[in-house]
Amino acid sequence: MIKVGLIGYGKAGQAVASVLASDPRYELCWVMRRSSGEVTHLPGRSGIPLVGLETLDLGNWLDLHPVDAIVDFSHADSVYRYGDELRQRGIMLVSAISAYSPDHLDYLRDLGRDTRVMSSPNITLGINFLLLAAKLLRGIAPFADVEIVEQHFRDKPEVSGTARRIAETLDLDNGRVTSLRVGGIVGHHEVIFGFPHQTVRLIHDSIRREAFGTGAAFALQELAQRESGFYSFDDLLLQKIRSQLLQGD
Amino acid sequence: MIKVGLIGYGKAGQAVASVLASDPRYELCWVMRRSSGEVTHLPGRSGIPLVGLETLDLGNWLDLHPVDAIVDFSHADSVYRYGDELRQRGIMLVSAISAYSPDHLDYLRDLGRDTRVMSSPNITLGINFLLLAAKLLRGIAPFADVEIVEQHFRDKPEVSGTARRIAETLDLDNGRVTSLRVGGIVGHHEVIFGFPHQTVRLIHDSIRREAFGTGAAFALQELAQRESGFYSFDDLLLQKIRSQLLQGD
Amino acid sequence: MIKVGLIGYGKAGQAVASVLASDPRYELCWVMRRSSGEVTHLPGRSGIPLVGLETLDLGNWLDLHPVDAIVDFSHADSVYRYGDELRQRGIMLVSAISAYSPDHLDYLRDLGRDTRVMSSPNITLGINFLLLAAKLLRGIAPFADVEIVEQHFRDKPEVSGTARRIAETLDLDNGRVTSLRVGGIVGHHEVIFGFPHQTVRLIHDSIRREAFGTGAAFALQELAQRESGFYSFDDLLLQKIRSQLLQGD
Amino acid sequence: MIKVGLIGYGKAGQAVASVLASDPRYELCWVMRRSSGEVTHLPGRSGIPLVGLETLDLGNWLDLHPVDAIVDFSHADSVYRYGDELRQRGIMLVSAISAYSPDHLDYLRDLGRDTRVMSSPNITLGINFLLLAAKLLRGIAPFADVEIVEQHFRDKPEVSGTARRIAETLDLDNGRVTSLRVGGIVGHHEVIFGFPHQTVRLIHDSIRREAFGTGAAFALQELAQRESGFYSFDDLLLQKIRSQLLQGD
Repeated sequence: MIKVGLIGYGKAGQAVASVLASDPRYELCWVMRRSSGEVTHLPGRSGIPLVGLETLDLGNWLDLHPVDAIVDFSHADSVYRYGDELRQRGIMLVSAISAYSPDHLDYLRDLGRDTRVMSSPNITLGINFLLLAAKLLRGIAPFADVEIVEQHFRDKPEVSGTARRIAETLDLDNGRVTSLRVGGIVGHHEVIFGFPHQTVRLIHDSIRREAFGTGAAFALQELAQRESGFYSFDDLLLQKIRSQLLQGD
Repeated sequence: MIKVGLIGYGKAGQAVASVLASDPRYELCWVMRRSSGEVTHLPGRSGIPLVGLETLDLGNWLDLHPVDAIVDFSHADSVYRYGDELRQRGIMLVSAISAYSPDHLDYLRDLGRDTRVMSSPNITLGINFLLLAAKLLRGIAPFADVEIVEQHFRDKPEVSGTARRIAETLDLDNGRVTSLRVGGIVGHHEVIFGFPHQTVRLIHDSIRREAFGTGAAFALQELAQRESGFYSFDDLLLQKIRSQLLQGD
Repeated sequence: MIKVGLIGYGKAGQAVASVLASDPRYELCWVMRRSSGEVTHLPGRSGIPLVGLETLDLGNWLDLHPVDAIVDFSHADSVYRYGDELRQRGIMLVSAISAYSPDHLDYLRDLGRDTRVMSSPNITLGINFLLLAAKLLRGIAPFADVEIVEQHFRDKPEVSGTARRIAETLDLDNGRVTSLRVGGIVGHHEVIFGFPHQTVRLIHDSIRREAFGTGAAFALQELAQRESGFYSFDDLLLQKIRSQLLQGD
Repeated sequence: MIKVGLIGYGKAGQAVASVLASDPRYELCWVMRRSSGEVTHLPGRSGIPLVGLETLDLGNWLDLHPVDAIVDFSHADSVYRYGDELRQRGIMLVSAISAYSPDHLDYLRDLGRDTRVMSSPNITLGINFLLLAAKLLRGIAPFADVEIVEQHFRDKPEVSGTARRIAETLDLDNGRVTSLRVGGIVGHHEVIFGFPHQTVRLIHDSIRREAFGTGAAFALQELAQRESGFYSFDDLLLQKIRSQLLQGD
C-alpha cells in the first residue's frame, strides 16, 4: 500500500481525498490545507489528520507521518514549500496544478532529477485517453474532417482548456472548437471524425469532480513503476500503451 | 499510382469500385464479376472494363491488363482461381471475404510467403480503429465497466459480427452486447466505458457501404509499404500506430 | 386505396416514388417529369408510366388515368400547370416545394378554397415532430437554455434551413445555431435543452432521402380526413396531436 | 410569493430544499424531518427552521408558521399525519412519494375533494416531458420501431421505474427496455424511434438530485392556477400543453 499525503483541500482536493481514502491500494495518511489552525481530521474519517500547511514544521511532520507520495491540488507556490523535502526523502509527486509559471515548471523539472515527478493541468483519465485516441486517429486518417464540441454549465467562462488542448494536439485551429453553455452540464467533450461514408465520435462526460481522484490514483500507480524523472500524464499513459502494444496480441 | 483490379461486383463491390475509381492514388484497371458473359464496362466509366471471372483466361488477361494489387470482395473460393497468378507476378492482395474456412486461410497464409496479403472480414477503417481504441482503454483501465451497444435496421438477423468481435477482443462475455433493431439504421456501434465519476463513449456510425472502399484504399496504401507476408487489417493499423508512437512527440 | 400521381422525378422524387409504390395504402398511378419525350415506365415497375409534363395534354391524361391526389416534388411553377385540374376534379395536393414565392403561395391558398392542399418546405415526419416537441418544451420551460446543433456533409453550404426554422419557431437568435460540416453525414439535427440539474436532447438523424416519402404518405393520409383548405405539415401534425390529447387518457 | 413547507430531509429532500430556498417565486418557511429533537435550522440558512415531524404539535406549528403549500419528499405514511390540516386550511400538496399503497392513494384522492393535491412518483420535469413527447410520437407514428435504453450507476438494482413507466405508457412489452449498469452514470434515459429512413431520439440525462426541486417548483406553480382536485404531474403538464396548443399560432 502506497502511503500518500494530500496537499490542497478545496473542492477538487476534497473529492480527491474521498477517492484516495477509499482505494485499497493507497493509505491516505494526512491532508494539508492552506490556512493554518489546529489539527483536526477529515469529516467522517477520524484517522486522517487535516492540518494547515502554512505554519507547519514540515520536516518534523514528515518524520512523524512519513509518506511515499504527495498529491498536490493546492496552488502553484506550494511546491517551493515542500520541494526540498521530496528531494531529500525520495518522495514522489503527483501535481495537478494548472497555473504553474515557467519558473515553477523549471523547478519541477529539476526536482525530477532526484525523484519521480508527474505534473499535468488535467489528470482525468478519460480526458487524457480521449486526447490520445484522437491523436492516433488523426495520424491514421489525416484526411478526415475533425470537429470538437464541448458543452458545459451556463456560467463557465471561455472555451474549456481541455478542448483547446485537444485542438492544439490535433493541430486544428480554434474555429474547429464549438463551445455550448447550457444549463448545468458538468463537462461534455466530443471529438467528431467525419469520413465520407462513416463517422467516429469520441465522447467524454464528467460526472463529478471525484474523477480527478481516479486520475491521481492512476498516476501514482504508474509513477511508482518508473524511475526518477519529470513526467506528464500523457507520458505515463503513452508508456503504458507502448508496453501494451509491444506485448503484441 | 497503384494499379488495382477489383474482384466482386455485388453491392459492396460496386461501392468499392466507386471509391477506388475516384481516388487519385489508385488506377482502377478492371472489375471482375462471377458471371461470365461479354466484356462490358462500369456504368458511367467507359474506360474500366467489367468482365466475368468464371470463363476468363486469367493469365492472358493479366498480361494485357497488368495490376499491382487485387482487391477481393467476391466469395471465398475466388482466391483459388487467382492465387497462383499473384504468387508468380508478385501482385499484392487485399481481401475482405468474411466466409473463409481454415483451409482458405491456410492457403492465404502460404501465399503470404511470396507476396503481400491482407485478409480481414471487416475492413472499415472506423470500426477497426474503434476496436483498437477500445482495447487500449481496456488495458489502461481494466476496472471500468464496459458495455457494447449496436443498433441496426429492423431485419438484420443476429448480433452484428463486429459487436461480437469487439466483445471477444475486450474479453467480455456476450451478455455485455446489446443489439437493438430499429427502423433503417445502417450501422451504429458504441462501446461505453463507465468509470465511477466519468464516462467514455467510442461510437461508430456507418453511413453507407462505400466505407469499405475507404478501408480498402487504406489497406492498399499500408500494404504497399510492407514486405511480403500475411496481415490482418489490425496488423496494418497497429504497425502504423506503433511507428507513430515511436516517433514520439 | 388512395390513387396518387407524382410530379417530379429528381433525386427526392425518385425516393418518394419508391416509398409510395411499396406502401399498400396507396396506388402510385403515374409519375411525371419535366422533360418531354415518349412515355416510358418506372425502372423495375412496368405498370407505372413515366411521362413528361411539359407537352402533355393534362386533362386528357387525367381522364384516362384519374387520381385522388397529386404529390409535387418538382419545382415552383408546376402548380400553375395543374392547378385548374385539381380545382375542377377535387384532387388533393401534397406539395413539398421549398422555393414558392408569395405569388405561388397565394395561388395555393386560393386553391385551398376548392380542394385540400398541403404545402410545406420540409415534409419529413421526424423533423416536423422535432419542431413541435421543441416548441412544447420551450413553452413549458422557457427558462431552460436552448442550443441547436446541426451536422451535415462537408459540402453543404450555409446553415440548414431546418435548423433556422427551429430557431425561428423557438424564438432564438441565430447565434444559438451551430452548424458543423463533417465528412458525409446525411443530416443530423439536435435541440439541447439545458436545465440546472438535467438535460433533454431531441435528436433527428436522416438516413436517406426516402424519408420524404414517409412524410408524403403521412400527409396524404391526414389530408384525406380533412375538409377543403390550405394546410401546412405542422397543421396536420398539430390537429392529429390535438385529437389525441382531447381523447385524454 | 408562495409560502412552502417541506416535509422530508433525506438526500432528495435536502436537494429540493436547496432549490426552493433559492427560487424567488417561493418562500421556503420551514423543513420537517422524521426524527424528533430540538428545532435547528437549515445549514447556511439560519432563517429556515428544521424541525422533527414526529412529536410536533402540527396545528400549533401551522398557526405560528402558516404556508400555502406543502411539498412531501418523506414517506408514505406522513400524509395521514398532516392530511386533516391541509383539508381544513386549504393548503395545497405536492407529493413525490413513490411507495403509496392503494389506501394511501384513496386518501389522497379524497383530500383532492377539498384542496389541490398533486401526487407523482417522479416529478422531474424533463422525464415527464420525455414521457409525453414519446407518447405523442407513438400516436403519430405507431408503425415506428421503439426501443427504450436506460443507463445507470453500477449498483442500481432492477430496471429503472421510469423506463418501465415509459414502456407502459407506450404500450411496449418489457423486452423493449434495455438496462445498462456502467460506472457512475447518474441517470440516462433514451427513447429511440426507428423509421425506415430516419431516426428520432428523445434523451434525458439527470445531472443531480436537485432536478426534483425544479419539478416541485413547476408543480407548485401549475397547481396554484388549478381548482381543487387530485392531479398527477402528467395532468399538470398536459393541461399546460393543451392550453398552449389551443392558443394556436
